[in-house]
Amino acid sequence: MPQLNNDRYLRALLRQPVDMTPVWMMRQAGRYLPEYRELRAKAGDFMTLCRNPELACEVTLQPLRRYPLDAAILFSDILTIPDAMGLGLSFGAGEGPKFERPIRSLQDVLSLPIPDPEDELRYVMDAVRVIRRELNGAVPLIGFAGSPWTLATYMVEGGSSKTFSRIKQMMFCEPQTLHTLLDKLTISVTDYLNAQIRAGAQSVMVFDTWGGVLSTPAYQAFSLQYMARIVAGLIRDHDGQRIPVTLFTKNGGQWLEDIADTGCDAIGLDWTIEIGDARRRVGGRVALQGNMDPSTLYAPPAVIEGEVNRILAGFGAGSGHVFNLGHGIAQDVDPAQPECFIQAVHRFSRRYHQ
Amino acid sequence: MPQLNNDRYLRALLRQPVDMTPVWMMRQAGRYLPEYRELRAKAGDFMTLCRNPELACEVTLQPLRRYPLDAAILFSDILTIPDAMGLGLSFGAGEGPKFERPIRSLQDVLSLPIPDPEDELRYVMDAVRVIRRELNGAVPLIGFAGSPWTLATYMVEGGSSKTFSRIKQMMFCEPQTLHTLLDKLTISVTDYLNAQIRAGAQSVMVFDTWGGVLSTPAYQAFSLQYMARIVAGLIRDHDGQRIPVTLFTKNGGQWLEDIADTGCDAIGLDWTIEIGDARRRVGGRVALQGNMDPSTLYAPPAVIEGEVNRILAGFGAGSGHVFNLGHGIAQDVDPAQPECFIQAVHRFSRRYHQ
Repeated sequence: MPQLNNDRYLRALLRQPVDMTPVWMMRQAGRYLPEYRELRAKAGDFMTLCRNPELACEVTLQPLRRYPLDAAILFSDILTIPDAMGLGLSFGAGEGPKFERPIRSLQDVLSLPIPDPEDELRYVMDAVRVIRRELNGAVPLIGFAGSPWTLATYMVEGGSSKTFSRIKQMMFCEPQTLHTLLDKLTISVTDYLNAQIRAGAQSVMVFDTWGGVLSTPAYQAFSLQYMARIVAGLIRDHDGQRIPVTLFTKNGGQWLEDIADTGCDAIGLDWTIEIGDARRRVGGRVALQGNMDPSTLYAPPAVIEGEVNRILAGFGAGSGHVFNLGHGIAQDVDPAQPECFIQAVHRFSRRYHQ
Repeated sequence: MPQLNNDRYLRALLRQPVDMTPVWMMRQAGRYLPEYRELRAKAGDFMTLCRNPELACEVTLQPLRRYPLDAAILFSDILTIPDAMGLGLSFGAGEGPKFERPIRSLQDVLSLPIPDPEDELRYVMDAVRVIRRELNGAVPLIGFAGSPWTLATYMVEGGSSKTFSRIKQMMFCEPQTLHTLLDKLTISVTDYLNAQIRAGAQSVMVFDTWGGVLSTPAYQAFSLQYMARIVAGLIRDHDGQRIPVTLFTKNGGQWLEDIADTGCDAIGLDWTIEIGDARRRVGGRVALQGNMDPSTLYAPPAVIEGEVNRILAGFGAGSGHVFNLGHGIAQDVDPAQPECFIQAVHRFSRRYHQ
């Protein structure tokens, strides 16, 4: 493998000195880019793009051709694992994900297979290998998975939810069924991320999009403890390189200390928390990733620059910050907008790294 | 007006001694009750129920006939104000609210009228008067309104939203248009709540359902400052009684100190924050309302009792806690379930008030 030309992202996650704050964007490969929409229209649907390593690679690289990003992230979806478990994933037009065979009983859980990442999910590992080769050391490649709790919400609800009433009924009435499901998902996610690392992912991230709908004790019992087991089970050094692990619980700002206790290297922050407060609370133990409201990218350049400056000043001097949006970039953002954002992070952050 | 037979709710909000912790449930008058569904089916639609003071009174009283609740809350909707402003509110079957004429420009904002609560919204004030008469001093009546920011989200988006992209575009690109809208809503909400107080509401609550989708500076600028102006403009004493004001920002746990600074009497908490932490932070200044996950009502009695005990113990000894759900009761909860919950609050809380 070639040397990395730009290792700013990995160094910041490990709180090592950098020349400027690295930046990437959640969902940077996606629908706001016309070249993405064109490729997706040709492919037919979203999962066809994900399942074809060459197309997934092409989509992964699209934003890197436009913007001076400091990392690439595998183009895929968190629901590849439940799909590989046989739940029958589809994406209706504008409707979000749907599972044909949702999980409704202990019997459903017990009959779920643990997918082999190099068999049923080989298309993901092939994508990682192709992307890593094509990146040719330009920037590091991030692998990812959904958290067990977040995957379980889709598997039990049968798709997206506003109320999470089915999974919460399971949590309150049949907690052992849910724990059995989360156990299986924890093993599957750990295997899946380790396979991504072996295939070439240089850092991995766990997305806990829905941990924030839980009370504190429920978050600890049904989401965080499983993420902690994943962190403990991951390959942390590969090919002589440290593989940083980032955990991101949306609306999880109240639990940063507990998240840091898992032994992860970095915590992702949404935009509802002040990054300066987060640093005071856990910055001595982990790096922080975030945390601009993605809607800021609708704003004129001066407003974007103002927000970038506010967040950089909030974090303050020194390494340990990866700039990012607090959630995915919106699909109707003008693709001219991220340029201003990314340039601002690089330009304005230099003085914090002298 | 007759003396209140049960003033536990008002006393707890004012942090005065009580014999046990008072309890009511967000959306206690609603679809989980078969008698509600029957009345609504006869009325035809939701707004017909709201607009008819006798029917609104009947629906308000239904849960009080079943359960030993410590407060009644006006049956109405936060969107009565934008409806009275002429936006054309409708509720499609299972679809949530829709506005025929959403707000898209400064011109739209400038042409919005400020509704007269005793004219366009007289049906609400009549409902308050009828309910207060029919309650006959059994328990206090809570009046309410949506926060300016929360109302603005529906008015600009045209209904519910997952991404809030239209209002955030307005916030970032035309902040003055949004401030002008929020100014008008602040005046309208203040007038509306004061009219409810004059009509007989013994406490008022402001629901900021969507403040939690903002960053800290945006929350302060676009939601909290307007709620603070409402608090400052409210009638705080009426008929020789103090009228307590409760502010509730869903997902607002990180801003409790700032919310307490508005001068409100109480803060509503969702279930993602530990009530003991909240009390340590602001319990010397305000009462707290909450904070059980409404999904707990799916659970068997022992689990419900366990959660009630955990939250009571979290708050600890002394007054200043109104027990409640952290958000509205789900429509598919078995109506036998709240009985166990309410009894548990009363029974287990006595020892914290000796």
